[in-house]
Amino acid sequence: MCKQCDIRTIHALQHHFGWDNSIAPVLRATPGDWLEFDCHDSSNGYFKHDSVAADVSAMPFDKINPVSGPVYVEGAQPGDVLKVTIDSFKPSGFGWTANIPGFGLLADQFTEPALQLWQYDSAALTPAAFGEYARVPLKPFAGTIGVAPAEAGRHSVVPPRRVGGNLDIRDLAAGTVLYLPVEVEGALFSIGDTHAAQGDGEVCGTAIESAMSVTLKLDLIKNEKLATPRFSTPGPVTRHLDGMGYEVCTGIGNDLMQAARDAVSRTVDWLCATHQMPAEDAYMLCSVCGDLRISEIVDAPNWVVSFYFPKIVFA
Amino acid sequence: MCKQCDIRTIHALQHHFGWDNSIAPVLRATPGDWLEFDCHDSSNGYFKHDSVAADVSAMPFDKINPVSGPVYVEGAQPGDVLKVTIDSFKPSGFGWTANIPGFGLLADQFTEPALQLWQYDSAALTPAAFGEYARVPLKPFAGTIGVAPAEAGRHSVVPPRRVGGNLDIRDLAAGTVLYLPVEVEGALFSIGDTHAAQGDGEVCGTAIESAMSVTLKLDLIKNEKLATPRFSTPGPVTRHLDGMGYEVCTGIGNDLMQAARDAVSRTVDWLCATHQMPAEDAYMLCSVCGDLRISEIVDAPNWVVSFYFPKIVFA
Repeated sequence: MCKQCDIRTIHALQHHFGWDNSIAPVLRATPGDWLEFDCHDSSNGYFKHDSVAADVSAMPFDKINPVSGPVYVEGAQPGDVLKVTIDSFKPSGFGWTANIPGFGLLADQFTEPALQLWQYDSAALTPAAFGEYARVPLKPFAGTIGVAPAEAGRHSVVPPRRVGGNLDIRDLAAGTVLYLPVEVEGALFSIGDTHAAQGDGEVCGTAIESAMSVTLKLDLIKNEKLATPRFSTPGPVTRHLDGMGYEVCTGIGNDLMQAARDAVSRTVDWLCATHQMPAEDAYMLCSVCGDLRISEIVDAPNWVVSFYFPKIVFA
Repeated sequence: MCKQCDIRTIHALQHHFGWDNSIAPVLRATPGDWLEFDCHDSSNGYFKHDSVAADVSAMPFDKINPVSGPVYVEGAQPGDVLKVTIDSFKPSGFGWTANIPGFGLLADQFTEPALQLWQYDSAALTPAAFGEYARVPLKPFAGTIGVAPAEAGRHSVVPPRRVGGNLDIRDLAAGTVLYLPVEVEGALFSIGDTHAAQGDGEVCGTAIESAMSVTLKLDLIKNEKLATPRFSTPGPVTRHLDGMGYEVCTGIGNDLMQAARDAVSRTVDWLCATHQMPAEDAYMLCSVCGDLRISEIVDAPNWVVSFYFPKIVFA
């Protein structure tokens, strides 16, 4: 981070819901500027220390996933690339993970709401306790990060798209440089949905959802062709998880989605059998630390999707 | 490995093509036995030091992917689980990677045969040179490992299935314990298709295909329910690749297969642009060291598949 630079703040109140290129910018930045974004969690502060599972169903869905911004970047034009250097996170120390009925990879198997609240050390970022079952290593990142799409109107914040948005890419963490295709004048950059930890896939639909502030730098690359977001990590991405290896279940078949579902479902069964966890807890635990990988995608007609569950959470 | 144990050898000549539970066992083993399997490469020795790209099209497809075995495990019955403790590999030092027309994730984009031959230090297993472009870290494993299916007749060795087979799981390396569901009396275990290195996905359809011998132990777990192969790694799985981080391209959309194709295709474009490689070389390089991961599979209707290309190969 540039310690001599002036860092301007976008406050959490300066947020919007959904993507819409007609939303007025909250700030105008010059390429090279450092900014700090305060971000609400994806429930917009709905979940508190005393929330219970029954509160999940009553969550107001028109107020989910607020993103702080948008920031207008001077000189940005459609066809440019916005370079986002992600510097650091200041997490709140409180988080939640939920099974939201109708949402998530195994929504048909997990029809009841469930909620896990987390307290973690926001300074030391030591692994966070999941009840008495496990301790989950933390690696903060922003689940939603993107720029406004060219198409007029308001677009749901839920699906990611060409211009980024709800990418939920676990490795968009401190030190990573993200490149986003610009579709509108000024780019109109926003960020939110901050997570203290998540596995690849975010399989139950939520991570350790947690308010935090993010410091980053915005730069502009003129006339660089980019189809979808690209990023570069400064070093290893799984060292917080991989120290003791993995227990891995597979899904095999001619449909990647079903293979992914099978791999996760079998991991949930394995966790229930070997660690005496309720299935809904096992499912949420998978979401915050387990990784979906495509082991093989060429041996027609069957592909292999593997779910990597890190043993370190039980150390 | 058990240094005091008698290790019996299954020779590479003792191989078969395809899976068929009527193939006579080449050896009968007792649970707890240590075995060494000599394995041909997946071309059955077709590619030599002087092979060229034109030889790819003439490869005899009825002789691909021989597997050494089968081994009959005393006491194994349908409904049991075969526990395979993978101990070590002795690679040959010669390998090949090919683009085989009609095969691979981007078969429509890469219609011409291409061939890369590898020489590597089979003792030190130092990274192997890909021409002047890159040096690929090695981690030997067996691409095909499994037991005979219950269904009568001969089944192609190409697709993996419930009982294993052509899983092409990169992390079935030394130290990993693999569990396979048994479908026939004696299990009828076979192994082959050994690889010196491969990324998750094996995107061009081939790895660093390389003859080697594999030492492993077979054990039996009676009456253990298992739907598809499961495995446990003794430690980290990407440390040979991750030291300098990754360059990552994404694919975003409502179809995981297309998203995977997009992510790899964009990585090939990026490699061509930044490292002045011919596209067919970039594609083969992706296959031997890049990893396909599912970043997000819940934010309907769009999923994110990311292709992680390790920077260390250019160090």
